[in-house]
Amino acid sequence: MAFTNLIRFRDEAGSIWYGDIPEEFLDRIVGSQVPILEGDLFEDTLVSNGQTAVVQQVLCPLEKVPLILCIGLNYARHAQEANLPIPPSPVLFIKPPAALAGPFDDIKVPPHALHLDYEGELCLIIKKDGKDISEAEADDYILGCTAGNDVSSRYWQRPPHSGGQYCYAKGFDGFAPIGPTIRATQKTDMSNLRLETTVNGEQRQSTITSDVLFNPRQIVSHLSRGYTLSKGTVIMTGTPDGIAGRMPGQPWLQNKDVVRVSISGVGSIENRIISP
Amino acid sequence: MAFTNLIRFRDEAGSIWYGDIPEEFLDRIVGSQVPILEGDLFEDTLVSNGQTAVVQQVLCPLEKVPLILCIGLNYARHAQEANLPIPPSPVLFIKPPAALAGPFDDIKVPPHALHLDYEGELCLIIKKDGKDISEAEADDYILGCTAGNDVSSRYWQRPPHSGGQYCYAKGFDGFAPIGPTIRATQKTDMSNLRLETTVNGEQRQSTITSDVLFNPRQIVSHLSRGYTLSKGTVIMTGTPDGIAGRMPGQPWLQNKDVVRVSISGVGSIENRIISP
Repeated sequence: MAFTNLIRFRDEAGSIWYGDIPEEFLDRIVGSQVPILEGDLFEDTLVSNGQTAVVQQVLCPLEKVPLILCIGLNYARHAQEANLPIPPSPVLFIKPPAALAGPFDDIKVPPHALHLDYEGELCLIIKKDGKDISEAEADDYILGCTAGNDVSSRYWQRPPHSGGQYCYAKGFDGFAPIGPTIRATQKTDMSNLRLETTVNGEQRQSTITSDVLFNPRQIVSHLSRGYTLSKGTVIMTGTPDGIAGRMPGQPWLQNKDVVRVSISGVGSIENRIISP
Repeated sequence: MAFTNLIRFRDEAGSIWYGDIPEEFLDRIVGSQVPILEGDLFEDTLVSNGQTAVVQQVLCPLEKVPLILCIGLNYARHAQEANLPIPPSPVLFIKPPAALAGPFDDIKVPPHALHLDYEGELCLIIKKDGKDISEAEADDYILGCTAGNDVSSRYWQRPPHSGGQYCYAKGFDGFAPIGPTIRATQKTDMSNLRLETTVNGEQRQSTITSDVLFNPRQIVSHLSRGYTLSKGTVIMTGTPDGIAGRMPGQPWLQNKDVVRVSISGVGSIENRIISP
């Protein structure tokens, strides 16, 4: 793997590049000078072209994705706060490709997507197509990890409005911001990352990623049973406790609120809510 | 629209074509001689190239799809048989693109997809990208309709195994056969079609498509609110009553069973179950 922390960015001339951002600059990516990488991210042909560029805008690390697979209830305390039983297997729901958004994009909320909430999550990126992948093989299929926000309209998530199925509530355009970097999996212990979510600077969620019911290998193996995982697929691995819907007074996200999801070694995404 | 009943097929020389099959041949497509259409299905540029070919194999009318959106509980009697409340809005879940299969493909069932069931459904094909589509505009976004089987593993669909979310139970490779034709919407009253499902020739489901809670225009409008529908998306519009899971003795689909879903004016798909 030719990178540790991959970014996709626009430089001052407006060109779009991949780059490798040194870990010490994860909190100030814009303005940093980074080595440019060229090649195919999924063919493992990314290499430095010997040039550097200054980051003007950090883009979604993936230009597009085939699908966004999401795991529900993967942290025991979140299942408890949601009054839902702890599931015996990973719970799958799906967001469409158009839900993908960049790490610093505004989230434009449709007028009917009421009771808006955040879910900070560790996300996996699938490296190559695969099916019936064992837990022992799973690492070979994971390109890296990133931070994500599984933005959710609780109005539509909870029965009766959409029958208790999560896809409508969580599938609106732009409801899956990810980034800012793809952290190469080989260089990270994904079971020992700090995941934090803040709203306007106030901490709402904080966990260690070891506190999960199903770890990344178990998730990849389970999802791939009888089911082809395509390269570029994003897997959101579930959120810890601390959602607005279970706080006193249910402080739903409001217009101009800024949600920040940070993962150690990956960096932070920061998205402003734009709602009617 | 240059067709009434579009098929995609392989001819005797192995070439793949679009064709327009006369309605009187819907029950015997293989062996029929049909006019060949060339052009882009979604750009409305399909035209006869003046030639004909003999159909050797009927393929999935769409080579690939961006997404398969599915509506749950759209027939009141199915909601009743499933002991689920009638939803106030269409219930959305999603199948991944790899679930797509052809009208006569075998369905290879993964060993753990237990309690296998059928759901015959009227399916819509989205013609062009759209968002925030009103019911009045919806017809402009529907290319046509086809028949489909929302193949389902009830073991994974029902709590607790996947938390009551439907995506895992219904998302396995090949669990969304559709076809055999795309019936041009302008030439069809989609509210007055006969939908029937048989297993090994025994009738299990039979309804008129007017018997729905939400019609195609309402579904397209609801799904597109804040959500970009991409051209080529398949929307499975829900199944009527008569599933195996609610019959006495729950006669789940077994190895070599043949499920046939027929829609008047569209034709029939017929898929054989291959299970361990």
